[in-house]
Amino acid sequence: MDNLLNNSTFCPIISILGAGNVATHLAVAFARRGFPIASIYSRTMDSAEALARILENEGYKTFCTNRLEQLQQADVYVVSLKDDAIPRVVASWPKGCKGGVVLHTAGSVNVEVLAGACEHYGVLYPMQTFSKYKPLDYKKITCFVEGNDETAESVATAMGTSVFGNCVKLSSADRRHLHLAAVFSCNFANHMFALGAEILENHGIDPACMIPLIDETASKLHSAAPHMAQTGPAVRNDQSVIGHHLEMLQDNPELQNIYKLLTESILRRFHS
Amino acid sequence: MDNLLNNSTFCPIISILGAGNVATHLAVAFARRGFPIASIYSRTMDSAEALARILENEGYKTFCTNRLEQLQQADVYVVSLKDDAIPRVVASWPKGCKGGVVLHTAGSVNVEVLAGACEHYGVLYPMQTFSKYKPLDYKKITCFVEGNDETAESVATAMGTSVFGNCVKLSSADRRHLHLAAVFSCNFANHMFALGAEILENHGIDPACMIPLIDETASKLHSAAPHMAQTGPAVRNDQSVIGHHLEMLQDNPELQNIYKLLTESILRRFHS
Repeated sequence: MDNLLNNSTFCPIISILGAGNVATHLAVAFARRGFPIASIYSRTMDSAEALARILENEGYKTFCTNRLEQLQQADVYVVSLKDDAIPRVVASWPKGCKGGVVLHTAGSVNVEVLAGACEHYGVLYPMQTFSKYKPLDYKKITCFVEGNDETAESVATAMGTSVFGNCVKLSSADRRHLHLAAVFSCNFANHMFALGAEILENHGIDPACMIPLIDETASKLHSAAPHMAQTGPAVRNDQSVIGHHLEMLQDNPELQNIYKLLTESILRRFHS
Repeated sequence: MDNLLNNSTFCPIISILGAGNVATHLAVAFARRGFPIASIYSRTMDSAEALARILENEGYKTFCTNRLEQLQQADVYVVSLKDDAIPRVVASWPKGCKGGVVLHTAGSVNVEVLAGACEHYGVLYPMQTFSKYKPLDYKKITCFVEGNDETAESVATAMGTSVFGNCVKLSSADRRHLHLAAVFSCNFANHMFALGAEILENHGIDPACMIPLIDETASKLHSAAPHMAQTGPAVRNDQSVIGHHLEMLQDNPELQNIYKLLTESILRRFHS
């Protein structure tokens, strides 16, 4: 391990566990960085092979398997599996693969879940939503890292900075809050876009007309904090418009409740 | 009026009422399109002069006033005032200005509010959130138009297409639903960004780390409808993560309620 880090060119051999969106982005990014990808493990052979093909199309050969005992020895194991699959994989961790550093990439999973796999273990959590085939500008992304000891922390940091623009140490406890914040900023925000689209479709208006508005709503945050960028009837305390909107949602108690709760939440911050 | 529209080069003289974000964007856009800006009226001289200065910096001279009776005669009057200021301005509409077409730009205000101003009246409602000094790609924006008669509708359409990429007829009744949808897609989505930032600040994490995530959340909608782009614990029905998140929000009943309501709303769409 120390050899790996003392080396002037950090170039670890990697094995990837998982073949989903995050696994795919990381595998390709590490391969492009010059790190050999020793193996890809996935629960199904189809998905392992699909990721291996993506790598092969870029000129990188790898071995793929759906049998955990065939995982190839590596310097760094990157575990990008569903949250509840991580403990199961750790419980059956191959004896020959205990010498490296194992890192998981999950927002809500404590680093200690990895304690049974390798002596050195940590977390590599890039703050982004990944789609398999949509390229991203990694240099803009912050990666949050953690390690159970100095070695794991250094390797996690070296792995993170090899791809992402910014690397920040964060404890498992704080990472859960980061993940919770991401649920609001990404998942719940997207649900607001979905509810807006539902209202438009119900009135025969093409939801695509909202895209420039949504782009601009996101874009404004490059120059102002969200609470400074707040617009709309609630921040203006425009009770007449709020009243009309609640009336319009009379037959839709679900949307009316959401409208009420979020309007109260905005009013509380600007008019109390 | 018919002369105006029959002319092969549509080039109406404009008077603008208002000097806020929408008024500023429209005044500059119309001036650049070659339309003479006869006057700018605003409730305060300061704001009228500020907009006149912006136009002057681009080489366009105009007259500005805070006295409605000094509004200059024009072919088209564009009323970009706060919702509740519109009826007041209509009630004191200058006698010399009754010959043109008057258009307001408000999402929630019925076209009929303008009936007392001119014979021809309508609406020009561009679906976007405008910041005074932030340039926008108008060609991507849909503008919704309405008129009390064919003349007003044609003038509103000609005004809209002179600046915006897309112009769509929409009744006052449907425009209210469009505006309601925009509250969800823009105002409430931004509030989700604000709540995410609050959680991060409470745990000493720089909220700027969310910007690439927020950009990507918006960007995904260029290739998928919002309900197809939904990610997160609710759409995966991951009750373990949802339970942990609700526990973490135990001391924050406001955020806990919002988390609960939005998670139920997503679950209802994907798991019922």
